[in-house]
Amino acid sequence: MSKLVIVGTVAFDAIETPFGKTDKILGGAATFIGLAASQFNVDASVVSIVGGDFPKEYLDLLSDRNIDISGVEIVKEGKTFYWSGKYHNDMNTRDTLATELNVLADFNPVVPEDYKNAKVVMLGNLHPNVQMSVLEQMKEKPELVILDTMNFWMDCALEELKAVINKVDVITINDEEARQLTGEYSLVVAARKIHKMGPKYVVIKKGEHGALLFYKDNVFFAPALPLEEVFDPTGAGDTFAGGFAGYLAKTEDLSFENMKKAVIYGSTLASFCVEKFGTERMTGLDTREVHHRLQQFKNLTQFDIELA
Amino acid sequence: MSKLVIVGTVAFDAIETPFGKTDKILGGAATFIGLAASQFNVDASVVSIVGGDFPKEYLDLLSDRNIDISGVEIVKEGKTFYWSGKYHNDMNTRDTLATELNVLADFNPVVPEDYKNAKVVMLGNLHPNVQMSVLEQMKEKPELVILDTMNFWMDCALEELKAVINKVDVITINDEEARQLTGEYSLVVAARKIHKMGPKYVVIKKGEHGALLFYKDNVFFAPALPLEEVFDPTGAGDTFAGGFAGYLAKTEDLSFENMKKAVIYGSTLASFCVEKFGTERMTGLDTREVHHRLQQFKNLTQFDIELA
Repeated sequence: MSKLVIVGTVAFDAIETPFGKTDKILGGAATFIGLAASQFNVDASVVSIVGGDFPKEYLDLLSDRNIDISGVEIVKEGKTFYWSGKYHNDMNTRDTLATELNVLADFNPVVPEDYKNAKVVMLGNLHPNVQMSVLEQMKEKPELVILDTMNFWMDCALEELKAVINKVDVITINDEEARQLTGEYSLVVAARKIHKMGPKYVVIKKGEHGALLFYKDNVFFAPALPLEEVFDPTGAGDTFAGGFAGYLAKTEDLSFENMKKAVIYGSTLASFCVEKFGTERMTGLDTREVHHRLQQFKNLTQFDIELA
Repeated sequence: MSKLVIVGTVAFDAIETPFGKTDKILGGAATFIGLAASQFNVDASVVSIVGGDFPKEYLDLLSDRNIDISGVEIVKEGKTFYWSGKYHNDMNTRDTLATELNVLADFNPVVPEDYKNAKVVMLGNLHPNVQMSVLEQMKEKPELVILDTMNFWMDCALEELKAVINKVDVITINDEEARQLTGEYSLVVAARKIHKMGPKYVVIKKGEHGALLFYKDNVFFAPALPLEEVFDPTGAGDTFAGGFAGYLAKTEDLSFENMKKAVIYGSTLASFCVEKFGTERMTGLDTREVHHRLQQFKNLTQFDIELA
């Protein structure tokens, strides 16, 4: 299980938070997923699309980390997908200031031949038809397919979304989206309904309140690390998904016990992502820092009660 | 460390939730704290006040669990404190429909002589002057004083509240109250500021999102157990505090490691409290059920990542 396919946006983001604002910087779901997964030195490929305006140095950031970018189509005469947003003071809510689809509007993803037998597929947030197209290009059923999505597709492409949800093993979704998708307020009940839509594993992301992993009648919870300051939440959910997918692709172990560890790795990497603007913290991250923070997660959550 | 003094309200509550409504039923902070602490068979005394309208069977509920009620003053001609509230659909917010202080308006707490050397004092949510009066009646400094409070006292008795906060070892407070008390949004920064006000241990309760325990540079987190349905949140915070205080009084171990276990016991007991109206679930609770749920908490939170 040595190969991971990641599909998602590679994009420009412009971000405003209470701490400052950026010009157009590197962003996109596949970018954050790839950077997180690269912590595990797993053989990975990003499938995406950018315009002729996209700096080579941004693509180099990925290929320098042994991420295969042959699946990133470059449309010379096109412009790269651009998103701009402004976070409110609580950092939990944001306004979208601009969304320019540009080359993303006509994106037909092409999975490189070498990756059509990958064992793990990470479908980052994109139109469900694009996610489905990637799945259909795989030569055999991958051992694990993980899907991330958002409320936007529930509003405008619900049937297509349900079709792809039915094909995946793991869905990662935030709490409000889980409620919207199922019409259930209780996340326990919502997870049960989502299981019935297809995914054996349901990960519900609660932002600063952590993440829940549901499998059959089991539930596991990973908190978010309490931080002094959340500088920029952009990409935290994708980083979580990338850490989760990368750890599972690397360890080649799809047991529930290992999924728990994948959730902890995802939470750990996400806790770094929010410390600086965009991808800045993730590109400078080393293994020593990750291990130190895993120890903090253990200290935060582990206790020793003996039961008769 | 075999004695625990609990001060707080013993009251009538009338509750309305999306699932139904009650007439006047047994409520009050000291009631919930006492019922939770009684799980540990610790020698405990409740200091409170009720009116002549308060049913003997409600007091029997406490004394049947070996809770000394000689410190509960009964004002024959008075009426018992009464609170009525209505929860919104999300169960996280509520409107207060009625608050009748009645006998609570002139409450002068009297600690029974036998309990003036108790090792643990649990100051339930009440006017800070009442909390201070209980502390001043103790013959020697208790080994552990725990204080619970609410935003109401920050609005109308902030200086008195700060005076009693300065005298306690542990404060339990919810996230919004911690923010109000300190003017800090980050709970990590808020906890540090509260440490400086006196308490060595700061417990920040986040309702359905769990609870954080801060001590020096350490932080521990206990999630709330994900439930299919929260039936009535009334008393959950007091039940948490009662489980925390009762466990520490029983085990006579004030180490940080043991405080973590106390937080887990508090969360476990609170997870039962919300399953039925008022005290109904807590009065029928047995040890077997508590142990089963502690195992669920372990399954929910424990993982095994080996670090180099």
